[in-house]
Amino acid sequence: MERVLTAKGAATRQRIVEGAAQLIRVEGVQNVGLDDIRGASSTSKSQLFHYFPDGKADLMLAVAQYEAGQVIADQMPQLGDLTTWRKWQAWRRRVIQVYDAQRQACALSALTAQLGTANPATRDIVNALTDEWHAYLAVGVRALKESGEIDARVDVAKSASAILAAVTGGATLLQSTDRLSYLEDALTEALDGLRRPRR
Amino acid sequence: MERVLTAKGAATRQRIVEGAAQLIRVEGVQNVGLDDIRGASSTSKSQLFHYFPDGKADLMLAVAQYEAGQVIADQMPQLGDLTTWRKWQAWRRRVIQVYDAQRQACALSALTAQLGTANPATRDIVNALTDEWHAYLAVGVRALKESGEIDARVDVAKSASAILAAVTGGATLLQSTDRLSYLEDALTEALDGLRRPRR
Repeated sequence: MERVLTAKGAATRQRIVEGAAQLIRVEGVQNVGLDDIRGASSTSKSQLFHYFPDGKADLMLAVAQYEAGQVIADQMPQLGDLTTWRKWQAWRRRVIQVYDAQRQACALSALTAQLGTANPATRDIVNALTDEWHAYLAVGVRALKESGEIDARVDVAKSASAILAAVTGGATLLQSTDRLSYLEDALTEALDGLRRPRR
Repeated sequence: MERVLTAKGAATRQRIVEGAAQLIRVEGVQNVGLDDIRGASSTSKSQLFHYFPDGKADLMLAVAQYEAGQVIADQMPQLGDLTTWRKWQAWRRRVIQVYDAQRQACALSALTAQLGTANPATRDIVNALTDEWHAYLAVGVRALKESGEIDARVDVAKSASAILAAVTGGATLLQSTDRLSYLEDALTEALDGLRRPRR
């Protein structure tokens, strides 16, 4: 249910969501109840239900939305400026740093698993994140193509998808095996592959 | 707890595991209890606890192990014979077919999420699967290198990791977005990248 909030209302809602996100990152989504979130964000029961009338599922969805935004924010400013090969390498280093620090603790994947990936509201959040991420990568691949740093025959959308899959796969394997090398190797190959001459 | 079972005992245990796996694939791991599994595999309570003394968690782990085996089995015989470029393409088609049919219903990821990826026993199963899968891919990359189909400078282990990450990332994105194109594009790029001349 989308409602128009006053500036003050929006700020309070945001404070609750960020407090909940913080708590969930530390304690795990299964171990956090509405009372814990009220405590952590100094919110009354009536305030909480004012902003999240459907209770915990509603709030968890808002936290998932927030965490999806964090996935992009964590890669900034590098992801937003992929105009040279050097900047792609800086983004690669940033991605590795972020996922290395995070390891098993991917807040978004814990939340979407809890909410159910088949849930249409979860699906919308994940699809919007995927599209936004893909769009940034596509802008970067196109820039390399236009500046002549990579072959003119490179398919921008497909290359961006492959790079996105490399990050996703590397991060998934890091989460399940605790080994960083898959992410490193996948990103190296995906980016080097982009530069290799086509036949 | 590993115990030596008679051939008959091993067959009974396998029947329980396969029955449980089948039921979980249809109903979802959260919706299946020990009584359902007993019913589906025509097993008595005492039999079930004979083979799985620690109860449901114990049996779920055995099912996860079985499903990990299925991940490899589903890619056979193609994964076991990656000796020519043509055979790599056949494997690629097989992988896409398997994941397209499966979509959101990845039995192994549902089980490992339920058991907890941080659980050491879960971790062992996933790591063993990752290593086995990687080994098959590495054998295939090495074969292409030795037959001269790809550049002699290709790093076998890193290329195999990148291909594995492409499948994992493509499958993860398919699961979360229900779009097959990431897997297709990631595999195409990872395999084409292997063939492109190095500088």
